[in-house]
Amino acid sequence: MARQPQHATDPTMNMIDRVCAGDMLTRAADLYPDNVAMVDDGRTLTYREFEDQANRMAHSLLDLGLKAGEPVGILARNCIELMVSYMACARANLVFAPVNLGLKPHEIAYCLRDCGTRVLIVEEALAGAGQALPDQLPDLEFLYWTGDSTHSAGGHTWKPVQQLIDNGNDSPLEVVVGDRDPVQLLYTSGTTANPKGVVTSHLAVTMAAMANVIANQLPPEAAMLCQLPLFHCTAVNCLALPTFMMGGKLVMAKGFDARECARLIEKHRIYMLLGLPMMYNEMLTDPEASKRDFSSVRRALYAMAPMAESKLQAIHDAFPNADVVLGSGQTEFTPATCLIRPEHQWSKAGSWGTATPMTRVAIMDDHGRLLPPGESGEIVYRGPQVMTEYLNQPEKTEEAFKYGWFHSGDIASIDEDGAIWFTDRKKDIIKTGGENVASLDVERCLIGHPKVAEAAVIGIPHERWGEAITANVILMPGEEVTEDELIAHCREHLAGFKVPKAIVVVDEFPRTGTGKIQKHLIRKGMEGYFSE
Amino acid sequence: MARQPQHATDPTMNMIDRVCAGDMLTRAADLYPDNVAMVDDGRTLTYREFEDQANRMAHSLLDLGLKAGEPVGILARNCIELMVSYMACARANLVFAPVNLGLKPHEIAYCLRDCGTRVLIVEEALAGAGQALPDQLPDLEFLYWTGDSTHSAGGHTWKPVQQLIDNGNDSPLEVVVGDRDPVQLLYTSGTTANPKGVVTSHLAVTMAAMANVIANQLPPEAAMLCQLPLFHCTAVNCLALPTFMMGGKLVMAKGFDARECARLIEKHRIYMLLGLPMMYNEMLTDPEASKRDFSSVRRALYAMAPMAESKLQAIHDAFPNADVVLGSGQTEFTPATCLIRPEHQWSKAGSWGTATPMTRVAIMDDHGRLLPPGESGEIVYRGPQVMTEYLNQPEKTEEAFKYGWFHSGDIASIDEDGAIWFTDRKKDIIKTGGENVASLDVERCLIGHPKVAEAAVIGIPHERWGEAITANVILMPGEEVTEDELIAHCREHLAGFKVPKAIVVVDEFPRTGTGKIQKHLIRKGMEGYFSE
Repeated sequence: MARQPQHATDPTMNMIDRVCAGDMLTRAADLYPDNVAMVDDGRTLTYREFEDQANRMAHSLLDLGLKAGEPVGILARNCIELMVSYMACARANLVFAPVNLGLKPHEIAYCLRDCGTRVLIVEEALAGAGQALPDQLPDLEFLYWTGDSTHSAGGHTWKPVQQLIDNGNDSPLEVVVGDRDPVQLLYTSGTTANPKGVVTSHLAVTMAAMANVIANQLPPEAAMLCQLPLFHCTAVNCLALPTFMMGGKLVMAKGFDARECARLIEKHRIYMLLGLPMMYNEMLTDPEASKRDFSSVRRALYAMAPMAESKLQAIHDAFPNADVVLGSGQTEFTPATCLIRPEHQWSKAGSWGTATPMTRVAIMDDHGRLLPPGESGEIVYRGPQVMTEYLNQPEKTEEAFKYGWFHSGDIASIDEDGAIWFTDRKKDIIKTGGENVASLDVERCLIGHPKVAEAAVIGIPHERWGEAITANVILMPGEEVTEDELIAHCREHLAGFKVPKAIVVVDEFPRTGTGKIQKHLIRKGMEGYFSE
Repeated sequence: MARQPQHATDPTMNMIDRVCAGDMLTRAADLYPDNVAMVDDGRTLTYREFEDQANRMAHSLLDLGLKAGEPVGILARNCIELMVSYMACARANLVFAPVNLGLKPHEIAYCLRDCGTRVLIVEEALAGAGQALPDQLPDLEFLYWTGDSTHSAGGHTWKPVQQLIDNGNDSPLEVVVGDRDPVQLLYTSGTTANPKGVVTSHLAVTMAAMANVIANQLPPEAAMLCQLPLFHCTAVNCLALPTFMMGGKLVMAKGFDARECARLIEKHRIYMLLGLPMMYNEMLTDPEASKRDFSSVRRALYAMAPMAESKLQAIHDAFPNADVVLGSGQTEFTPATCLIRPEHQWSKAGSWGTATPMTRVAIMDDHGRLLPPGESGEIVYRGPQVMTEYLNQPEKTEEAFKYGWFHSGDIASIDEDGAIWFTDRKKDIIKTGGENVASLDVERCLIGHPKVAEAAVIGIPHERWGEAITANVILMPGEEVTEDELIAHCREHLAGFKVPKAIVVVDEFPRTGTGKIQKHLIRKGMEGYFSE
């Protein structure tokens, strides 16, 4: 039998068998037209309205003259327009390209220039700050904002994005979409170099949404809390698209506020949420937030950082009906790669759990050899939800796909049960006095101290040690502690060479827009700490 | 951004992002190596063994000189070797081509000739009956059976299939697999014409498995009863592959026996089963079977035929912890297209429910126009799990895909809630005395009679009526009834022109290997009934 390609040329025929991220909305609108798809402060949008708006906006974007594969740049916090834009792009075969608001202004301009966007859509509240942006984008032709009326600022005309929605043709849109055509462009937060544009296909995005539904056993019509930013893959791929696939309700918050999120959980009978450890800490310790009714929550994911068992137990207690699950991943894998299975909740506490559906995980040495259980090396992944490429960076793409696996940059070993024991980022291994120390080991020890909420451990250049292990910590609300007390705690639980040479209490960490700690900035801020 | 094709040329690179039906086994073997994947009478196979055997057999098949896209013909009832062959084919980029044992010998030979298979694998118990087959297959070069030793019969040498498994190389197999390369070839039971070979891709099979997991909210490691034949899409795509995807246990039976199935449900704590209405009827009325413990069952699907509410209620009572769900579909859609949602269980009883995940359903008139809710026309489908083509039948393929939708041949209307009300097969509309009568209407009425288990209603040529509505019925175990009693029952519930002119009680219906009633054979058997 010969290979038969997807119906690929005629738009009508293409719709029989294509994989298009926009079709998950159409299917949900067929089944659940009157369900509320999104809640955005006082505003709501039903699936019928969502389908109609996405369709109209898709027509309008094509009417601007945009061609298949062109990006649509967006600068916005969580709002209905953001996800209408996603679905409009998907069915017009354009590329949803929201910018990470955690980036610095020059980085934001870099991303939009890198993809050469001709359209930019800006949230009204950000229009003031973003006023200087259009001048830095030589390719820009069309400028929209979520404001009510056309206005001029910075020498540019800002039109209401609502025009794209209201004035678009309402006929069904039939555009050829290839399974592996790009639909999503997300820039990973830069550490040392410029941000990298991660290009993801319709197939990858659809597989990832399905895999998330499977992994979380998401039932139809569930309500999901989305306080993480939708310009990031975690919120868009683990929360928004799975919600839409199942006809559920995406309850948005513009950033994290413990009281507001707790209120939304109670009000909307939230089924699943996904947060950083500090978000749970705050909701559980705030006197008002902690009084809310969390009984509807069946699935409480936390990401990005391990948690001490006592804190994990506190979440279990506060969400008595929920599976409390650590998820790990990265933008390049759309993004979930590992989840803790319920039966591993305590027996494998501290691990990353096991591979998500559709993901293979293995450990590789520097020469492309896969390592047996127990041996430490780089985590590598395979699966159809992997990115297509880093935009405009063929060499970085090739490097990431070396030896036929996607290279994560994370160091770990896998045990006999398939559980992944993360050691550290490849570049976060601290070399001190001839020893290799995983910063994570030290962080785990520090957050085991009852007064410590979060810890970030780095190596600082040091004459004697090469690098000196150095910690920044954030305390639990209302607590105080001395450096000596924390060092004594470390001395009790860690090998001598792993004990930090300095521990600094701070109010907050520099973070990416998604809450990831930017260790390079901490490192930079502490340069010369030991020579002063 | 340009479209980036799947990594398509180098086998190692291809494995990063491909969609290959064989990879779901590899992922399960990573996570659940010691779980039992299959139970086949006294034999079991763990995922580690399954992975190893599929890999070795894939090497052996390629060593025979088979090329990408070639079929592997198989003649077997449910057994471990059947599914090892599936996974071996999938990862060698060959096509799993089991033959429907319900077909007549000349049809079986037709199918194997049609696909031009060079390999045939035969279950030991069928080797006697299949002895004449090889002579009818001009392309045949390699003949295997599940027997222990090489033997000669019918002028051919039959080698043990175990050799393909034992002697294969155990190195990881790296073969380029395209997302839309064919992996599965199933012939639909012929009605008037020859069987049609339905070609299905890796992408379609994978999407269908994921969609089934989602639709049935299948948890990891669940046990599934498989008494339906695995040469049919319902068992292979709705039960086997979803089970393997989730690391579960596929408990096989070679055909349906009420006592044996009930025993297996109790013994293996079966989570989900899928059966024809008559299978449930038998399990519930057999004095031994009905005493078994069915408390583990959470999902009881029934397919192929509607059930009277009283019988449905009896299943609910017997499976107190289960969602009892009608599923509909067809081979060309891999196969599930509609399922009854729990909230529609009673309010939409008698309907087909709503579209499965990844499926769009619409109603179309004869001119390619989609019809609004309430209007009756042909059910048409879209979704990436649709077949690629009918093998060697480009015209039939084109016809099936007319107007950019897959044409089901089923007549229905869709209500405002998206529920599909099936009227009949397009060709099962009976034209009698100037009226169009859906045979299904009459069947629904007949099975509403407490003594009737199943009914098949057909039109028989008749001088006066054009076609005369005629029913064959099977009674509930131990019951007796007169034709007059049943006709009186119909007269009470149906319009006069819908009342059958004759009702015949029979012991069984002619059926395809999967239990579908072969109305054309009933029709043929009753030809001239009214002229005698």
